[in-house]
Amino acid sequence: MNSKMRVAILGATGTVGQKFITLLTDHPYFEVAELVASERSAGKRYVDACAWKQNTPIPGYIADMQVKSLEDTLDSPVLFSGLDSSVAGAAEERYARLGHVVISNSKNHRMEEDVPLVIPEINPDHLSLIAGQKWDGAIITNSNCSTMFLAMALAPLHETFGVEAVQVTTMQAISGAGYPGVASYDILGNIIPYIGGEEEKMEIESQKILGTLADGKVVDADFVVSAQCNRVPVVDGHTETVSFSLKKKASLEELRSVMAGFRGLPQELKLPSAPDHPILMMDDADRPQPSRDVWLEKGMATVVGRLRPCNVLDYRMVIMGHNTVRGAAGAAVLNAETMFRLGLFGDNPAEDYNTEELKRRAYALSTDGMRDVVCSK
Amino acid sequence: MNSKMRVAILGATGTVGQKFITLLTDHPYFEVAELVASERSAGKRYVDACAWKQNTPIPGYIADMQVKSLEDTLDSPVLFSGLDSSVAGAAEERYARLGHVVISNSKNHRMEEDVPLVIPEINPDHLSLIAGQKWDGAIITNSNCSTMFLAMALAPLHETFGVEAVQVTTMQAISGAGYPGVASYDILGNIIPYIGGEEEKMEIESQKILGTLADGKVVDADFVVSAQCNRVPVVDGHTETVSFSLKKKASLEELRSVMAGFRGLPQELKLPSAPDHPILMMDDADRPQPSRDVWLEKGMATVVGRLRPCNVLDYRMVIMGHNTVRGAAGAAVLNAETMFRLGLFGDNPAEDYNTEELKRRAYALSTDGMRDVVCSK
Amino acid sequence: MNSKMRVAILGATGTVGQKFITLLTDHPYFEVAELVASERSAGKRYVDACAWKQNTPIPGYIADMQVKSLEDTLDSPVLFSGLDSSVAGAAEERYARLGHVVISNSKNHRMEEDVPLVIPEINPDHLSLIAGQKWDGAIITNSNCSTMFLAMALAPLHETFGVEAVQVTTMQAISGAGYPGVASYDILGNIIPYIGGEEEKMEIESQKILGTLADGKVVDADFVVSAQCNRVPVVDGHTETVSFSLKKKASLEELRSVMAGFRGLPQELKLPSAPDHPILMMDDADRPQPSRDVWLEKGMATVVGRLRPCNVLDYRMVIMGHNTVRGAAGAAVLNAETMFRLGLFGDNPAEDYNTEELKRRAYALSTDGMRDVVCSK
Amino acid sequence: MNSKMRVAILGATGTVGQKFITLLTDHPYFEVAELVASERSAGKRYVDACAWKQNTPIPGYIADMQVKSLEDTLDSPVLFSGLDSSVAGAAEERYARLGHVVISNSKNHRMEEDVPLVIPEINPDHLSLIAGQKWDGAIITNSNCSTMFLAMALAPLHETFGVEAVQVTTMQAISGAGYPGVASYDILGNIIPYIGGEEEKMEIESQKILGTLADGKVVDADFVVSAQCNRVPVVDGHTETVSFSLKKKASLEELRSVMAGFRGLPQELKLPSAPDHPILMMDDADRPQPSRDVWLEKGMATVVGRLRPCNVLDYRMVIMGHNTVRGAAGAAVLNAETMFRLGLFGDNPAEDYNTEELKRRAYALSTDGMRDVVCSK
Repeated sequence: MNSKMRVAILGATGTVGQKFITLLTDHPYFEVAELVASERSAGKRYVDACAWKQNTPIPGYIADMQVKSLEDTLDSPVLFSGLDSSVAGAAEERYARLGHVVISNSKNHRMEEDVPLVIPEINPDHLSLIAGQKWDGAIITNSNCSTMFLAMALAPLHETFGVEAVQVTTMQAISGAGYPGVASYDILGNIIPYIGGEEEKMEIESQKILGTLADGKVVDADFVVSAQCNRVPVVDGHTETVSFSLKKKASLEELRSVMAGFRGLPQELKLPSAPDHPILMMDDADRPQPSRDVWLEKGMATVVGRLRPCNVLDYRMVIMGHNTVRGAAGAAVLNAETMFRLGLFGDNPAEDYNTEELKRRAYALSTDGMRDVVCSK
Repeated sequence: MNSKMRVAILGATGTVGQKFITLLTDHPYFEVAELVASERSAGKRYVDACAWKQNTPIPGYIADMQVKSLEDTLDSPVLFSGLDSSVAGAAEERYARLGHVVISNSKNHRMEEDVPLVIPEINPDHLSLIAGQKWDGAIITNSNCSTMFLAMALAPLHETFGVEAVQVTTMQAISGAGYPGVASYDILGNIIPYIGGEEEKMEIESQKILGTLADGKVVDADFVVSAQCNRVPVVDGHTETVSFSLKKKASLEELRSVMAGFRGLPQELKLPSAPDHPILMMDDADRPQPSRDVWLEKGMATVVGRLRPCNVLDYRMVIMGHNTVRGAAGAAVLNAETMFRLGLFGDNPAEDYNTEELKRRAYALSTDGMRDVVCSK
Repeated sequence: MNSKMRVAILGATGTVGQKFITLLTDHPYFEVAELVASERSAGKRYVDACAWKQNTPIPGYIADMQVKSLEDTLDSPVLFSGLDSSVAGAAEERYARLGHVVISNSKNHRMEEDVPLVIPEINPDHLSLIAGQKWDGAIITNSNCSTMFLAMALAPLHETFGVEAVQVTTMQAISGAGYPGVASYDILGNIIPYIGGEEEKMEIESQKILGTLADGKVVDADFVVSAQCNRVPVVDGHTETVSFSLKKKASLEELRSVMAGFRGLPQELKLPSAPDHPILMMDDADRPQPSRDVWLEKGMATVVGRLRPCNVLDYRMVIMGHNTVRGAAGAAVLNAETMFRLGLFGDNPAEDYNTEELKRRAYALSTDGMRDVVCSK
Repeated sequence: MNSKMRVAILGATGTVGQKFITLLTDHPYFEVAELVASERSAGKRYVDACAWKQNTPIPGYIADMQVKSLEDTLDSPVLFSGLDSSVAGAAEERYARLGHVVISNSKNHRMEEDVPLVIPEINPDHLSLIAGQKWDGAIITNSNCSTMFLAMALAPLHETFGVEAVQVTTMQAISGAGYPGVASYDILGNIIPYIGGEEEKMEIESQKILGTLADGKVVDADFVVSAQCNRVPVVDGHTETVSFSLKKKASLEELRSVMAGFRGLPQELKLPSAPDHPILMMDDADRPQPSRDVWLEKGMATVVGRLRPCNVLDYRMVIMGHNTVRGAAGAAVLNAETMFRLGLFGDNPAEDYNTEELKRRAYALSTDGMRDVVCSK
């Protein structure tokens, strides 16, 4: 008996879609059953439709799969979306209306009031928002890649000491721009001190993720963020310098301690994609570095170094993580794993997923709390 | 009759030394008469002693010049020093004691009380400090490369509105580390979030440069700076993201106006190496960029873009400049040109330079003001 | 009285078009009077239509010029074409039919029997082919960028010793692919061992360029070329390793001598864009290098190093040159300068250009020889 | 009972040494028992002595190990040497004299008459040379990194059709130069068309490896090689364009077939580090590429693409492989595994290694053939 849940990948030929395939191959909960892409690719074998850019070959079971179009009916209950934002808005909504659970990496729905923007180590309770979504199915989103590492690094600080203000400058890898993305003529030996929309995303998404649920709504965290985003000639791994002030006084040692000790629901549930240490502290003066540290914890860690006092705000630090793993496809997969183990897909997800149960259990999350609903799978 | 002043280059085979040669060839005030390097190079022809790394060939008159050692007696009154900091301290002091004027790019003496740390657009009056130096000759320094662009961008803001606090993150080119400098294995496709001593330099040097003279001493500017320095895979051009708060309220338009209108003594005197616009404002959202803009104003500009409000401090911006030209050798040359035209080397520098006159005129700078002493050359 | 000839630039917003603008600004013979681009840009001011990628600002007289479309009538007699090959074929032909002289960098017409493929140091006599062209005007082409440096390096060897066989491996800069060209994700820290159509171009174009005119036709040179073309993460400058065998025995010293001494018509006529040394020999074991040597002779040289015996063929060497200057726009400009000074545009090109005279003089080239027709301008 | 053989790593803090540690951790035959480095590191804990540059952390059992000096007595029978060539010559010889088996990646002894230069897929029989070595122990070498991929690609061609002449141009990764190796200022966005000694190594080593044993001596293969070696801004992976002529006529299909089907002793013995396909053929026009394909077969493959006819010699192709794995440390490890399974270290290597048996069994290799002596471990 196959206990795996069938899933589809939307935008399967793009860079996020390819990463989904890589991460979901041999996954214990999910099995890739459908590949969906634009009209141009639809009807072709995946291997013919896709300019595969991963460092491992296309998995055999994927290569010959026929690509479906965004118009086709899908029979997988769960859809991982790596759709381009130009089409993600309408397409994801349509699928949600049809009863699918869309686990989306796209920006389109992130800031909607009833759409959870989830990092399961931080705010898995926000998943209960889907109980109130207007669709039969649901849309769940993960954050922008740069926001991910910032929110993760701030989470234990905010919980313990209260974050007040944050200055962040990013140095972002080119893989974050998709494919073909940044022209080599623009970035080889160069810095581009601008990424459209990125600064705004970092500034508002982190407030929502670290916000609290009250009466079924997210109350944004009340710190302010100022982000300055740069593209750098690095392939994988976003590096960020961060300065921050806290509401309560805290010693350097206390900061280190709460960051190093930070664990969340994914660690508790030992989810397949969960890093042992969501925050990995490094001591060397010149770390983290993308080319050395990006694959720590299989690309699922937020690596933090150089934590030290700041002359202007209270403290400063350098953070780094894998933008297409923890910062994109891996984040979505971890969201899906969390939902799976919280029982949102039912007690026997491979067989009895239904939208009423999904909504009922999502609602229960907000009333019964999370611990009671964890699925024993 | 040759009206040019004979100068020597200390550390002539290094990267800063090579840049001095390039900038001083066909210079209207100075002529390179002596090349000085370490014991290993001394006695050799320059072309044999030097791993020339510039994009233009070694000038013919330089190639065959015999390299002198740091032990040799020099007869040039002015010495441009690109010495490594491991030897610059003692060597520069010895030369100053012998009556030479050492125009130094090295860090060793910058923060000494009686040594001027000069950017002639900002604090040419600090040159009067040399009147009080304990040596017959003098040591004049320019700032660290990253400090240069920060101090320049802040100067008109500080003068007009008063700077209160500054957050800066740098993305520094590898040429700033000299040669061989950064190993390619460490930086190709990578970011190194640490440059030893750099953050401290930025934090204190900018306070001294923007400080005021009182009773023959520099009173540091009272703003605080927090710097986070990174090495990036760029050959030439340091990029910096800056956030700052001001003492007086100022509109974006006022800021733009004082920055774009900023001019100093080098512009007034039309010094050979002076940029027309010491601060060059760019409007495009994605500028400045090192590979596109580093040679604007012959590498002597501080290029500023993306000036806009900040959520945490008052405003933020991106600044960029050529680290080995305006940030190093070019800065020293401009210092020397300033001294030349201020008459510190005498009315007829090629012939009548003497140390007493140097001291007398330096003292006059602080009493009579700068305008009265400008040399008509 | 303005003695300059009015010229238009086709494909003015592209990378080759931009380089044409840079090279033709302040040109002694030509003045840019019209800018032509695709429908999308037509009607806009150049500064609005163009993503300017040069390191110098857009010249003032160009910025506000209104871009014309390929459908518009042009009144400049000479058109520099940097059109994309997808449109160059038909468009250039149409302009030639209308009486314009199209100086083209595009590949489309290069191998046509009556179209000269010219490097003026090597085969300026091939310009006489235009006498037989079926159009009122004419099309003149320069070679592919990689072919340029190979043909130039082989020219004196072929003339003196006869080239028999050539093996060449290229390492080509990304600027050769235009803009946006190569995706950064494909080339950052990578090598792409394939450039579509490039190997074939190198193999046949060099045979035509080094071919001889007989009865008004080009008889291809009879050597064989085997090319292997690679894209490398370099911005400007194609490097090529070459092995070759000769028909006559020649010593290393003889080779060096004929290469270093090579001069052609552009040098004789002291054309504005002509390098003093079309072939520049370097002695250092590790040269030429693109980042050091690409701007020698203002980007118009073919730099040759490491000339030494080969174990398989007779000799081997490394050659390098600026692919968008000597290898593209600069080559076209030098072709136009050659035609100008050969009098093909008339005795007073700014005023009395006409197509009959063009054809008559082109024919005269093949009968009277080149020396007799040089224009005294 | 521990059945693993104790081994030492010479030059343990260098880049090849670090790769040895990575490859030998959890190895089924060997266990790293001693780390040896220069005087400067000796006596320190490994973690303190070493600037670790691998992408995985230092293994725990290694971190605290005390580094020994080249003067210390070692008790491991097998020594993996990643020593710098400036010291490898004398040091390796001294250890061989003391009875150790030195598996060396250094160049110093490779071309000595009685030292096997082994690629176990090609010439494992050359191991019998050690029977005649003048030392109680033995020295076994692997090839230069660039030679490795060339020799591997040529091996099946030479065996079946006879190779006559080879032209090869390399584009070599910077990791091949060790650490700090190439200065970033020399290679960022640049090509260096020279690597000291590399061309000669490729030209002679491939002849020895593909040579045949006769009367206990290697008779070099009689083809000629002409190599042109370049350094490129790639971190890992050497790419080579190759043209070659064969003694027997062969169709493209025959070539493909013998290359794709090539297997050797390591595959037959299923050695732990053996790639399934020592030669991996790729069909895509633009492959192999270092950043995509370098980790195929865990970095132990020679990846071959673009096999096609050549205009000058018979055929051409592109080959690529991981220079510090298959091209260096991995090659040495595979040599040691081959010796282990051929029984050269005895029937029970962890316990009964002795130098007489080593010599006896090496001699047997040349008389009894390899198949008879394979150890059943």
